[in-house]
Amino acid sequence: MNHSQLPATLPETDRTRHRRLREQGSLDRGELEAILDAGFLCHFGVVIEGDPVVVPTVYGSDGENLYFHGSVASQSLTASPGATVCVTVTHVDGLVLARSVFEHGVNYRSAMIYGVPRLLTDAQEKLEGLRCLTEQAAPGQWDHARRPNLRELAATSLLAVSLREASVKIRTGAPEDGDGPDAALGIWAGVLPLVSTWGAPEADPLLPDGIEPPRHIAARSGTRAG
Amino acid sequence: MNHSQLPATLPETDRTRHRRLREQGSLDRGELEAILDAGFLCHFGVVIEGDPVVVPTVYGSDGENLYFHGSVASQSLTASPGATVCVTVTHVDGLVLARSVFEHGVNYRSAMIYGVPRLLTDAQEKLEGLRCLTEQAAPGQWDHARRPNLRELAATSLLAVSLREASVKIRTGAPEDGDGPDAALGIWAGVLPLVSTWGAPEADPLLPDGIEPPRHIAARSGTRAG
Repeated sequence: MNHSQLPATLPETDRTRHRRLREQGSLDRGELEAILDAGFLCHFGVVIEGDPVVVPTVYGSDGENLYFHGSVASQSLTASPGATVCVTVTHVDGLVLARSVFEHGVNYRSAMIYGVPRLLTDAQEKLEGLRCLTEQAAPGQWDHARRPNLRELAATSLLAVSLREASVKIRTGAPEDGDGPDAALGIWAGVLPLVSTWGAPEADPLLPDGIEPPRHIAARSGTRAG
Repeated sequence: MNHSQLPATLPETDRTRHRRLREQGSLDRGELEAILDAGFLCHFGVVIEGDPVVVPTVYGSDGENLYFHGSVASQSLTASPGATVCVTVTHVDGLVLARSVFEHGVNYRSAMIYGVPRLLTDAQEKLEGLRCLTEQAAPGQWDHARRPNLRELAATSLLAVSLREASVKIRTGAPEDGDGPDAALGIWAGVLPLVSTWGAPEADPLLPDGIEPPRHIAARSGTRAG
């Protein structure tokens, strides 16, 4: 969990106000941070020549900003500098299997962040952004792997998007037709959970014998992701 | 796997041509279908008042079309009828942990579909779309749960998006700095796999005793999703 200077309650804007399924909406910045902290992959939406493009990419979050690099940075920059992007992070927790098809659904935690990306130009800020991105996906790697040199840093585009404007939706629990007329049908209903787990590290075939995975990687095996 | 009437090779359009990381691009419709078949959740991108909105939602695929319902249908329809949407489905298979931070990456399978949604109005076609959506997430449920009645069907918006124009990207395998100068650093490198697994069914607390989960649900426990 990060310690952000941003307000604890998410601001309601035209974009983030919860219109449908209001009971699934949250304005708690702590829930936003928990969703971001639990993942490392997002879907990054930009408008290119009037049409939407949704690119899967990794992110880093420091509680104030999201950081992005690579193709997403180049696409969103080339497309339209100063344009708003929408970044969505979703964790699927299970299928909600109701008595009726109509009441079927998904248990999930999702955050949508809206903002105008800022291109990082300062070398120190770029390094910090890369550290954040690296540690988000693989905590411990920044101190373990070889850090970017000046040439690599120059070849990397990095974007920051503020976490100021965001919308959070969460659904948990059982189906909702357990106290309605369909309960009499005697059909099984409940949740089928979906769990993401880190597997055992698979060494690069080119790695010489005798180099074992470091603890910060090996210790993740069998633990839950998301 | 579906048996589509669409060409086995995906067409290269301005949008789907692989510009970056070309070695990760695929024009094989079979790979597109495999990625769609392995999931049920997508990120649906629309343009609303000039800005992108990326909504997580469930889909169904019959090999020719993707089907969507609910808020996505209403949003994309209200926003701009006749406008193109971008639908992205991503499976994350693992972290690629290289010797250098610069070469870190993600093993993934991803499909981006571009198309103009078509609103389904015919009741039979809507039912077929709902069946496809339901069976995508929970195979067997269409014949098990209570099917939509006329009122529910009328209350459901359903969209179809053709699978004609799509872009597929896949990355597998080890990091790529095993035969470069960084190999001499003696840093562990490899892949940390990420696996999604279905858990044990959790009965709705309101379910009377003695109703067991049906085989098509119980049999998924412990099997891989994605």
